[in-house]
Amino acid sequence: MTLHADYDPDNIFAKILRGDMPSVKVYEDEIALAFMDVFPQSEGHTLVVPKHVQARNFLDMPTLKLGAYMERVQTVARAVEKAMTPDGVVVTQFNGAPAGQTVFHLHFHIIPRWKDKGLAGHAAGQMADMGELQAIADKIRAKLG
Amino acid sequence: MTLHADYDPDNIFAKILRGDMPSVKVYEDEIALAFMDVFPQSEGHTLVVPKHVQARNFLDMPTLKLGAYMERVQTVARAVEKAMTPDGVVVTQFNGAPAGQTVFHLHFHIIPRWKDKGLAGHAAGQMADMGELQAIADKIRAKLG
Repeated sequence: MTLHADYDPDNIFAKILRGDMPSVKVYEDEIALAFMDVFPQSEGHTLVVPKHVQARNFLDMPTLKLGAYMERVQTVARAVEKAMTPDGVVVTQFNGAPAGQTVFHLHFHIIPRWKDKGLAGHAAGQMADMGELQAIADKIRAKLG
Repeated sequence: MTLHADYDPDNIFAKILRGDMPSVKVYEDEIALAFMDVFPQSEGHTLVVPKHVQARNFLDMPTLKLGAYMERVQTVARAVEKAMTPDGVVVTQFNGAPAGQTVFHLHFHIIPRWKDKGLAGHAAGQMADMGELQAIADKIRAKLG
């Protein structure tokens, strides 16, 4: 996968957006969808993807749609912080496989951090228990708005 | 430093914004300032900070000002990519010291990545040569807009 390539409409997040794949949802409106990362690097690791746009990454994202999308990233990040009460929060986004991107639909990671607690490797991580993810998603959703 | 604290108007980036500290500038308008990280994790490591706002981090940033700021982050990220032609680009932002934040004025990192080339540790890194940073900044600026 190169940094510049055509959007693949069959990427996993496109399937989630179409409802062809399940996800543990945290937030959804006309602009963005947020759901739990199934290979969490820490408890509460949440992804936010833009809807109705074929953008592989941040560089590709139509500038006119960027602001509204980033507002949703912030909304979800604030709720993650309130729900999980971590010591810190990483907000990060990868463009291209050599940067760490594995799904080629734009997404920001919201990753809670705790003092003295490392991160799980993303690709090496174990798939999370769906019941646990759902319980975390419920906690985050309760802090939205 | 806790995640929630008052903005310190004497943080290094506030001093840079006031012109009380030097920086190797890449981009500046009324909304944002971009400059080279003096402890680069890779060649072309650039920071983008919002102007006229006292926001320690992404969570703090007034939502009404977020979109315009993120458009500048994208503008600079695209120019960094064009100038440095990396294999990937990391766009990342840390909230709170346990997440990796060292300066408490909101900033996004734009970090070029190359295949088979690791990142320098940020805090452990050596301060870059100012002449080299200036040459890189000139290359990036040439790719703006």
